Amino acid sequence: MPPKFQPPKGMRDFPPEAASRLQKVLDTIRRVYELYGFVPLETPSLEGFDLLSAKGGLGEAVKDEIYYFKDKGDREVGLRFDMTMPLARYVLANPTMPKPFKRFAIGKVWRYDNPQAMRWREFWQADVDVIGTPTIFADAECVACAADALRALGFDDFVIRFNNRKMIEALLLKGGVPKEKINDAFRSIDKLDKIGSEGVEAELKQKGIKSEGILDLLKLKGRSDVILQRLETAKPDGLPETKQFLSLTSSLGLDKWLQLDLSLVRGLEYYTGLVFEISLGSKVSCGGGGRYDNLIGQLGGPATPATGISLGIDRILSVMEERKMAVVAAGSRVFVAAVGEELRPKAFEVARELRMLGIACEVDVAARPFSKQLEYANNRGYPFCVIIGPKEVASSTFKVKDMISGKESELSQEGFFSWAGKLV
Amino acid sequence: MPPKFQPPKGMRDFPPEAASRLQKVLDTIRRVYELYGFVPLETPSLEGFDLLSAKGGLGEAVKDEIYYFKDKGDREVGLRFDMTMPLARYVLANPTMPKPFKRFAIGKVWRYDNPQAMRWREFWQADVDVIGTPTIFADAECVACAADALRALGFDDFVIRFNNRKMIEALLLKGGVPKEKINDAFRSIDKLDKIGSEGVEAELKQKGIKSEGILDLLKLKGRSDVILQRLETAKPDGLPETKQFLSLTSSLGLDKWLQLDLSLVRGLEYYTGLVFEISLGSKVSCGGGGRYDNLIGQLGGPATPATGISLGIDRILSVMEERKMAVVAAGSRVFVAAVGEELRPKAFEVARELRMLGIACEVDVAARPFSKQLEYANNRGYPFCVIIGPKEVASSTFKVKDMISGKESELSQEGFFSWAGKLV
Repeated sequence: MPPKFQPPKGMRDFPPEAASRLQKVLDTIRRVYELYGFVPLETPSLEGFDLLSAKGGLGEAVKDEIYYFKDKGDREVGLRFDMTMPLARYVLANPTMPKPFKRFAIGKVWRYDNPQAMRWREFWQADVDVIGTPTIFADAECVACAADALRALGFDDFVIRFNNRKMIEALLLKGGVPKEKINDAFRSIDKLDKIGSEGVEAELKQKGIKSEGILDLLKLKGRSDVILQRLETAKPDGLPETKQFLSLTSSLGLDKWLQLDLSLVRGLEYYTGLVFEISLGSKVSCGGGGRYDNLIGQLGGPATPATGISLGIDRILSVMEERKMAVVAAGSRVFVAAVGEELRPKAFEVARELRMLGIACEVDVAARPFSKQLEYANNRGYPFCVIIGPKEVASSTFKVKDMISGKESELSQEGFFSWAGKLV
Repeated sequence: MPPKFQPPKGMRDFPPEAASRLQKVLDTIRRVYELYGFVPLETPSLEGFDLLSAKGGLGEAVKDEIYYFKDKGDREVGLRFDMTMPLARYVLANPTMPKPFKRFAIGKVWRYDNPQAMRWREFWQADVDVIGTPTIFADAECVACAADALRALGFDDFVIRFNNRKMIEALLLKGGVPKEKINDAFRSIDKLDKIGSEGVEAELKQKGIKSEGILDLLKLKGRSDVILQRLETAKPDGLPETKQFLSLTSSLGLDKWLQLDLSLVRGLEYYTGLVFEISLGSKVSCGGGGRYDNLIGQLGGPATPATGISLGIDRILSVMEERKMAVVAAGSRVFVAAVGEELRPKAFEVARELRMLGIACEVDVAARPFSKQLEYANNRGYPFCVIIGPKEVASSTFKVKDMISGKESELSQEGFFSWAGKLV
């Protein structure tokens, strides 16, 4: 029989072990983001529909993809589907804020997607964005930061594919694609992975876009710098900055993970320059981003260059679980067991003193007899039990049981706290 | 002119400084919860309406108080208004889980309240609950844990008022209140703070509940143990466990913050035993909870005793801000400045090495000239700048500028990393 109450469709619980892992991953990423001097911005989970519908010209169509509803005041609202639109709102509302504004945001977002493997309707993202500077230094910093976060989590086989939409747009224009069909072309090219080059060719043809030569170029594989050399004769816009980006990230030791992919354009219309897509083990997409210099201007603010990268935490967690990668949560180390009923308060007192030393410990709160307390401690994998018995209390000593060897030691008060100090 | 896009009514942004403070507070509380051996449980922000409407017999009426809507599949859902109902759902779905189950949850909840001072429609809670044991040890542990969390945040003037609904129910029954009017009586008594004893008396009279003597008893002030002595002759149910609770918490050194308040009943019908209400500076309520032994049974599960306490983070933050209490976020310590354009990549490299040592640092990403970089570092309050100039690069040395004294030091590579190591 299925449980009477279920989480909403496409959403899930993180039981304790998974929740610890999640928290550890979020903490690790946050530490890296802070190391780069990004500052946090925390915004509500709900946003007005006016804001949500303003991304990349999505408009009313966005309703199909998000949790949209009217509140009791008949205001149109929705659960945020990303953390970039809330950031843009904050930037618009704080026009005098010093720039560049380097902010990070780690939190949940919601999309009304069809639930499937590694796709949830509620999921966690960890974003870095740099607002207010057009330099490739900002793009490189986001990439370096995301790479460091993945490395801090223990990954080494990720791939950061990158491209420059400016460059591809220039190539398409040179190839005879009319300006007004560029976005159409991008949308087809974006499907290269899914429908193959024949599929893309057919789609372009159907849209009246001549694709001769273009697709062959976009499919170029190999070293990023060699691919860029192939473009030298065409001299498209964006080539110099792409070369500069590659040189900087190379000097930062990121070559190993970076791969130029001229077919990467990312569907959303709002990207304007360098774009990124991160995958784990070359398959699972776990993040992406790019430059979106037009967004804030389109929302009615002053022209404000911006770039950012978002990591998808749930994907990362899935791969970590699949690979049985260790994320050790601190967890409790000591169980304090009371031999008799009247010694329970004493057990609580000893636990309190251990906690003051920063040692996570547990005391029985279920009125279990002593032997059951030990059994529980053993099952939960506690390496040590402190046993509070009448003899120990009378002589102000402490009995510590090593739960693995079974060995018991009698310690003086001083000896006990010195032992405990080493556990922290 | 107000900003074009606004956060939803009753919700707010946490700008970087406030977001850092929030994060520090959440981290501190989490550390204390973990010290007590509570384990995390992470559940979705949305829940089915069947679950949300099942609390304390609220039913359809709960729609007025929450964010309720139908999703595109016509499923009734709502944003969670607490983290106890999701916990109960999880417990029901995992009947074989070992008990007691000590879980903590830290996250956002939503209520469609009238926005006012210190009352938001989206706010943060930090909960501990113990599921599966009826002992007062579990209640005492939750109280000790909440008290430790507040102390870890730097508070010392909080008051944890407590009471036992079993005891008050017994007293009311003995005073002649009929069983079926007990909850009615509780709801009136709950308003004592708001409408005074005359108001409560009037309400009870209107409800046909005779209140002679009862209110005088409930208004008793003074030492908790002395108040309990006054009840010895009446011998109400729940008196022994309340005494046991007081004795245990006293031996844990919690007396200073605990105060028995016989008029504290907490409105919600689902409380069944000990109840708690925590306030800061005796005024701002910042948490509460109690025993709810019937909830899981009422949801269709086996009878399962349960108790818990929830801290209201936004209230705590408000008081901390009001009192200008320090919550120091780590923040960046070092700015790496490049003297010329061609040295920018080198600045990124040095920053990368510093970050590997765990030192948060920033590099200019805005293409500012050198003097502007120093000006920025100074304005942002960086205590140190590492200056990457041609001379230093040529001689493999490092120039460190103390931004307070203005003093510059030339350091060898070894000296530099030894200096940096001390910053962590």
